[in-house]
Amino acid sequence: MNLDFTFYNPTRVHFGRNALEHLPEELAQYGSRVLLVYGKGAIKRIGLYDKVIEILKEGGKTVVELSGVKSNPTYTQMMEGVRLVRENKIDLILAVGGGSVVDCAKGISLSAHCKGDPWQRYWINFEEVDNEIVPVGCVLTMAGTGSEMNGGSVITNEEQQIKGGRTYPSNINPKFSILNPEYTFSVPKEQMVSGIFDTMSHLMEQYFTGEDDNTTDYLIEGVMESLIHSARIALQDPQDYEARSNLMWCATLALNTITRLSKAQDWEVHMIEHQLGAYTDCPHGAGLAVLSVPYYRYIYKDGLKKFVRFATKVWGIDAHSGSEEQIALAGLDALGDFIRELGLPTTLRELGTTEEMLPRIANSAVKGGGYRQLDETDILQILKACF
Amino acid sequence: MNLDFTFYNPTRVHFGRNALEHLPEELAQYGSRVLLVYGKGAIKRIGLYDKVIEILKEGGKTVVELSGVKSNPTYTQMMEGVRLVRENKIDLILAVGGGSVVDCAKGISLSAHCKGDPWQRYWINFEEVDNEIVPVGCVLTMAGTGSEMNGGSVITNEEQQIKGGRTYPSNINPKFSILNPEYTFSVPKEQMVSGIFDTMSHLMEQYFTGEDDNTTDYLIEGVMESLIHSARIALQDPQDYEARSNLMWCATLALNTITRLSKAQDWEVHMIEHQLGAYTDCPHGAGLAVLSVPYYRYIYKDGLKKFVRFATKVWGIDAHSGSEEQIALAGLDALGDFIRELGLPTTLRELGTTEEMLPRIANSAVKGGGYRQLDETDILQILKACF
Repeated sequence: MNLDFTFYNPTRVHFGRNALEHLPEELAQYGSRVLLVYGKGAIKRIGLYDKVIEILKEGGKTVVELSGVKSNPTYTQMMEGVRLVRENKIDLILAVGGGSVVDCAKGISLSAHCKGDPWQRYWINFEEVDNEIVPVGCVLTMAGTGSEMNGGSVITNEEQQIKGGRTYPSNINPKFSILNPEYTFSVPKEQMVSGIFDTMSHLMEQYFTGEDDNTTDYLIEGVMESLIHSARIALQDPQDYEARSNLMWCATLALNTITRLSKAQDWEVHMIEHQLGAYTDCPHGAGLAVLSVPYYRYIYKDGLKKFVRFATKVWGIDAHSGSEEQIALAGLDALGDFIRELGLPTTLRELGTTEEMLPRIANSAVKGGGYRQLDETDILQILKACF
Repeated sequence: MNLDFTFYNPTRVHFGRNALEHLPEELAQYGSRVLLVYGKGAIKRIGLYDKVIEILKEGGKTVVELSGVKSNPTYTQMMEGVRLVRENKIDLILAVGGGSVVDCAKGISLSAHCKGDPWQRYWINFEEVDNEIVPVGCVLTMAGTGSEMNGGSVITNEEQQIKGGRTYPSNINPKFSILNPEYTFSVPKEQMVSGIFDTMSHLMEQYFTGEDDNTTDYLIEGVMESLIHSARIALQDPQDYEARSNLMWCATLALNTITRLSKAQDWEVHMIEHQLGAYTDCPHGAGLAVLSVPYYRYIYKDGLKKFVRFATKVWGIDAHSGSEEQIALAGLDALGDFIRELGLPTTLRELGTTEEMLPRIANSAVKGGGYRQLDETDILQILKACF
């Protein structure tokens, strides 16, 4: 744990089959005016909308709704929420849905009382938050983004074709998050596997940095092993409660900052994917799946020992089966096999990317890197390798 | 994650070489009257006492001191702290020292405004806390108990010969904890290894329950692996910052409740050790070291698959090297070897236990268990196997 850190995560998580029973006690802590944020109606199909409305009514709340939040939530929608919060003097934003809904709610929470232009101040200039935050609560129906227990909010500005995200201080963390794995049963398989790979990618972005001997790396390996194991069970039987509950908790752990403590972190795969998403509106997990193996093949020699460790500890590759390079590559092959096993795409073409988009994506992606600092030429080469 | 849970841990942890720089900003959040709690003077020898006093003075605080807290903190000392808090209208209790100092501070915090007899209400009857809590902050100098990020407080009532402990709601968690691994450099080797084994025992108490496939078990294995790895480095070089920092963070993770989520948990080794401590005042980690292998040998057949998993995943025993029973026992042998490697005692005699004490310890220990529910006869048999 060579790098100093501060850890503070005040989200109260209620997890399990009966987690919704905690909603009334949580609601009781806030004023009466609630903005209910949700997506395109999945929560109505599974009966969750009616249950939540009933609890809100019993708690004497006045409810205003923002519905139809898209899977890559847009700045336009977020600003519609900001208008509703201002006009209705909202006391609590309740997000019911997947990570996009939670991200949208946190964006509204942060922006409603912002002086000036929120996009410019918070998503472009990364300014410190100096305004009042409207508290957010969450009832989660999808596992993957980890947004339920952190201060991140990824928003797409359609006009500017920029998908911007950052982690804000923990004061925009949801105050509470209700996680019932049974809600994830109804999610289409493509979204389940997208969430699984989103989780895997969060773990890898934090894992593949540093030459250090860090307890956090051992934690990450544990979460990766559990994720892979449970993913295989859930692929066979999406109704397996134990597997789906593990997948849900792995997603939370992967991004609640406990798996990044004292790590330098990379996040370049996410930076490239954000721009891929801005151009194609592809599912986040699918974009990450296409980019990951070519990205890591491009940089693995710069962090060889860690890629060897990944191969042997996470994928069970025999440590004596070849040279360090061969073992590292065998680990990345295993990662590629896992992506195919999940049924996720492996080429940019499958995501609707055209060849003309590649230079624009490479140009607009935030440049960074973990074991190697990347420039526009590097990113273009990686994109071509994915095409 | 089959068992429902609520996770909420609002302690703000500042970790690293410069962690003390955060003390002023933390102190600024509380009133001016501070009770400084510490042990027998180790913090003076390493210069930490002077630094903390300077920061307190610069922050304009009025300081009252409770010093000389023992390694198994006593109820008498705790009640002396209660008196000081009441007489001086204390706003913040600042614990500077090891886990015993923190436990004592939390006990004072809980009891100062208690209506009625705190020992009877909170340590014997486990009543719900219905009084105001005096906030606690912590500057930690030893790694092991994990008290820096939870609501537990283990106190010994010398008169009644009972060492009582329980985890209270997270409102008695320290509000902040400052963890600088360099402070642990000066701790004598016996205390370092006692802390290491205390951590290992906390992990095992949570791990050895359930037949479930739980993400938490993977996390625990990760922490165990890191702990064992760093312990071996620190035994060779106690000044190795990376190893000592890992040991410190492992200790926090082992008892900040993240490694128990959705686990049934055992804690019977701790229950027996508490009474061993009440009779002999032995170091907690040393008591746990003596009891653990005989305890697990006594129950391993009831949780055979988990003991096999422990052997193969944590200790690297070849899964094909024998029958399940042989592999499980080989894992417990490896645990025993690790205890000897740490230089910890392996018999009750070494702790000053007499044969006459054994029935009294067996009688007074709280009865429970994980894979097997134990009665007094069982505990006596285990104690005899340790003698």
